[in-house]
Amino acid sequence: MSLSVNSYFDDNVKSIAFESANGPCTSGVMLPGEYVFSTSKDELMKVVEGELVVKLPGAEEFLSFKTGSEFNVAANQSFDVKVSTTTAYLCFYS
Amino acid sequence: MSLSVNSYFDDNVKSIAFESANGPCTSGVMLPGEYVFSTSKDELMKVVEGELVVKLPGAEEFLSFKTGSEFNVAANQSFDVKVSTTTAYLCFYS
Repeated sequence: MSLSVNSYFDDNVKSIAFESANGPCTSGVMLPGEYVFSTSKDELMKVVEGELVVKLPGAEEFLSFKTGSEFNVAANQSFDVKVSTTTAYLCFYS
Repeated sequence: MSLSVNSYFDDNVKSIAFESANGPCTSGVMLPGEYVFSTSKDELMKVVEGELVVKLPGAEEFLSFKTGSEFNVAANQSFDVKVSTTTAYLCFYS
């Protein structure tokens, strides 16, 4: 087992992948910006520091998710994220 | 501003450094193992996924800190950490 680091969006998002007690997980950080993420598995996103403003698949409006809040995205979807303060998150895959 | 990745203890601990709304912070992951960390600043450690079993500076016994719990370590101290399940943490510096 080892820790792999991945980088996305011109290094504006970086994450460390690991196997948690609750399944495969990435611990990541997003710099301020606007991103579109695509899912290949069901994802549970937990905001652990900061704020993600998210338009979920099929939604018409952006919702704010601050430290301690979370949201789910099904597999094979995409969702929009706006970040104004650098934000740390955990993403669990199932 | 950019995200820098650091690696410690033969790549068994990796972290991403960033500037949070609450000050300088690292978002990291520790593989199972036993580590001794030294502080150069006051640190607030938050366990965001998993469990750290910690002997704080001056303490005689190890204490368990699980998901959602936190502890402080003053600058210029060292503390022992035992990890049995891969664990994600946030460390805030002040």
